[in-house]
Amino acid sequence: MPVKHIPDIVVGRLPQYLRSLQRMALEGRQVTSSQELGERLGISAAQIRKDLSQFGGFGKQGTGYDISFLIRQLRTILNIDHDWDVAVVGAGGIGSAVARYHGFTDRGFNVRLIFDSDPEKVGTQVGEHTVQDYAQMAEIIEQAGVHIAMIAVPSADAQDVADKLVKAGVKAILNYAPISLNVPPGVYVQYIDPSIHLQRMTYYLSR
Amino acid sequence: MPVKHIPDIVVGRLPQYLRSLQRMALEGRQVTSSQELGERLGISAAQIRKDLSQFGGFGKQGTGYDISFLIRQLRTILNIDHDWDVAVVGAGGIGSAVARYHGFTDRGFNVRLIFDSDPEKVGTQVGEHTVQDYAQMAEIIEQAGVHIAMIAVPSADAQDVADKLVKAGVKAILNYAPISLNVPPGVYVQYIDPSIHLQRMTYYLSR
Repeated sequence: MPVKHIPDIVVGRLPQYLRSLQRMALEGRQVTSSQELGERLGISAAQIRKDLSQFGGFGKQGTGYDISFLIRQLRTILNIDHDWDVAVVGAGGIGSAVARYHGFTDRGFNVRLIFDSDPEKVGTQVGEHTVQDYAQMAEIIEQAGVHIAMIAVPSADAQDVADKLVKAGVKAILNYAPISLNVPPGVYVQYIDPSIHLQRMTYYLSR
Repeated sequence: MPVKHIPDIVVGRLPQYLRSLQRMALEGRQVTSSQELGERLGISAAQIRKDLSQFGGFGKQGTGYDISFLIRQLRTILNIDHDWDVAVVGAGGIGSAVARYHGFTDRGFNVRLIFDSDPEKVGTQVGEHTVQDYAQMAEIIEQAGVHIAMIAVPSADAQDVADKLVKAGVKAILNYAPISLNVPPGVYVQYIDPSIHLQRMTYYLSR
């Protein structure tokens, strides 16, 4: 499907639209509107219409959006019309929880590999996965052709892990360590840092 | 400290500045620049200067920013110059990992309470915390005066949990369930959904 350049800020909203639409589909719904999507997401209906019009009109004036059609389109645009294998680095509390989490599979992702450098953890089972030795990580990831990884190691180690992942061919990193990573062009990083979100809210709370 | 209205988009960047500055402080650094901060964060130096000037100038032209002074100012502005107690709802994989995580304490937050409705989990230990019964949650949170909570329950239960939390006086919710929550004005919600971040990156990956 040919897709023209979409601004990054719009790309960032598409997964939210997809998530809401998938929830509506689970509720057995067939049609929705920009108004309803907007209310669910706290985004204006006008913004949603504008975003979706960036890559062609999906709704007809007055009849709303066909939910299953829009889900298929968004999955194609977001490049998750096939599943991606994911590696998790770090088998501590967060890494283990993420590797055991079953919510990725219907969102386009399968955790396939988990690594740790702690000899006590290597060989143990985390959900369906056996923790493998960090020393073999680069080779295993390269051979498996895995392009997405999650980093769940202490901050002090996160940049080294990222460097190794990039060398092994990883193109997208979800970083749970509370530190900014440097990666070369063509590699993407996103961050999960709950404290950042909490601090963003405490600003608004009365002292 | 009197603070004028700061746009929400700027508020969202302040915790990132604070995190980078705290890391520099840990490295023993005393002074930084908007250029250096920008390189660490992937934000332009001009943007950082503009953001920080919103609430008064913290740096002098040519001498840079005093790191410890700026940390103190940002902590005051973000309302984390004192610690906040936090309740975790859900003692599954994610909830337990979050409750055990030690990275919140130097960011302004202390997990104090954890709840679950599963009788098998109530009374068990998660790190330093004993899992308490969800049936008593509202009362305990209200009595403790806790205003911040994290939701780590299945999507189908998340809105009910949020409603109960709001009634108990919670003003800020960090939601790990992959669903949008409706809350009344004056209550803030932020979301942690790794799939959203992953999908935002797969858009850019070659098929």
